[in-house]
Amino acid sequence: MPLPIRLVLLRPRNAENLGAAARAMKNCGLSEWTWVRPEAEELSPARRLAVHAEDVLEASGRADTLDAAVADCVWVVGTSSRKVEGKRRLSPRAVAEEMVQRAAQGPVALVFGDERSGLTNAEVERCHDLSAVPTAPEQPSINLAQAVLLYAYEIRMATLAASPPPAAPLPVAATDTELALVESALEDALVTGGFLVDEQSRGRTGLRDLFAPLRRSRLTRKEAKLWLAALHTLAKRLRSGNRGG
Amino acid sequence: MPLPIRLVLLRPRNAENLGAAARAMKNCGLSEWTWVRPEAEELSPARRLAVHAEDVLEASGRADTLDAAVADCVWVVGTSSRKVEGKRRLSPRAVAEEMVQRAAQGPVALVFGDERSGLTNAEVERCHDLSAVPTAPEQPSINLAQAVLLYAYEIRMATLAASPPPAAPLPVAATDTELALVESALEDALVTGGFLVDEQSRGRTGLRDLFAPLRRSRLTRKEAKLWLAALHTLAKRLRSGNRGG
Repeated sequence: MPLPIRLVLLRPRNAENLGAAARAMKNCGLSEWTWVRPEAEELSPARRLAVHAEDVLEASGRADTLDAAVADCVWVVGTSSRKVEGKRRLSPRAVAEEMVQRAAQGPVALVFGDERSGLTNAEVERCHDLSAVPTAPEQPSINLAQAVLLYAYEIRMATLAASPPPAAPLPVAATDTELALVESALEDALVTGGFLVDEQSRGRTGLRDLFAPLRRSRLTRKEAKLWLAALHTLAKRLRSGNRGG
Repeated sequence: MPLPIRLVLLRPRNAENLGAAARAMKNCGLSEWTWVRPEAEELSPARRLAVHAEDVLEASGRADTLDAAVADCVWVVGTSSRKVEGKRRLSPRAVAEEMVQRAAQGPVALVFGDERSGLTNAEVERCHDLSAVPTAPEQPSINLAQAVLLYAYEIRMATLAASPPPAAPLPVAATDTELALVESALEDALVTGGFLVDEQSRGRTGLRDLFAPLRRSRLTRKEAKLWLAALHTLAKRLRSGNRGG
């Protein structure tokens, strides 16, 4: 059974890239991918480049938002060369090795931005960790299909190298949706409690820095539920205190 | 100074592959290549795909025979999935690591066959060792430019590993004492907020499970200070609410 490793392509513009990416995925034994609002309409150039991977091309999922594309994922890695405090910057090889392990807990996603501008700041924030191909400084920009190939190749190498899974079952990991609920509850408690005063400026940065370690730590489902319950209780008590005071 | 690692392309037929290969080489810090009797005549599609690697494209060497292309090389590896007695079959990773080492002794060459039939039997014999990308059995055939990219990428990874760049300074980690302060502040807020009701039994277990992910995530000092400030603010507000209510 193939591992639940999903490639997510945001706003892909170029049909030839989609075809070459499909071929590369099939070369490396991957078949699950989702296109978020694809801008490439005419798919015949994609079919020409897919060669014997038309099945992968036809089986692409569609989503309207990155959130929807990764809602069920236990780990979401964005491909971007940006540095963001609180998020790890992993090599493609390290991402592949960790994905093959984590895919035992649930679906994992690797997110690629569009050919022109890559991931937006909000999308970078949305990902749990980041990764970039260590390209040469003379030519840092890499073609989308070639980036897909490199990650798919590393995933194949890691899959081939992977030892049999550990006998002890891993704890159930929180999904991306469950993480987002915890983050909202944290924001609610901090705003109600008067710690985040200006949601537009300092507020969002503070929330991001506070939430980063929880995102990094790969919450289990049990921990996520406990945090949610704790934060709801605090927010409720704060609200009643606000009214009483 | 770049390592003397040379890619040799035998009878390349498709100009787009040459352009994509040039871009991939430059992405990975390679620039030396030789085309043996190229069949792609019109190079404008190559220029379109080379993007910012026109210099690599223009600088390709030409040779009439494989012998001439590798005459000065101390090691010649052919890319082919054939098995030949007396020659090693190396993974792309193993080839790259050995090439980076052997290039200290003199030029080394990696040979790619044409898009249609690959290396001839005589060419396979001519090479010192062989290598193939471990593609999935469902789609074993890989595009020429994509094969060039994978080997170039492995050569870049091996080069970087041979001369690691200075590591970026790590953020200052919170000390164990700072962590204990955050844990106390969390306990204080949760007890004041009525979430931890029984400090003797359920309370400690709940606190431990809530704190576990923060401990796991290796908080930075900055994050620890922020959590401390947030939890102090909430506890203070909860206390004044308790008094007011």
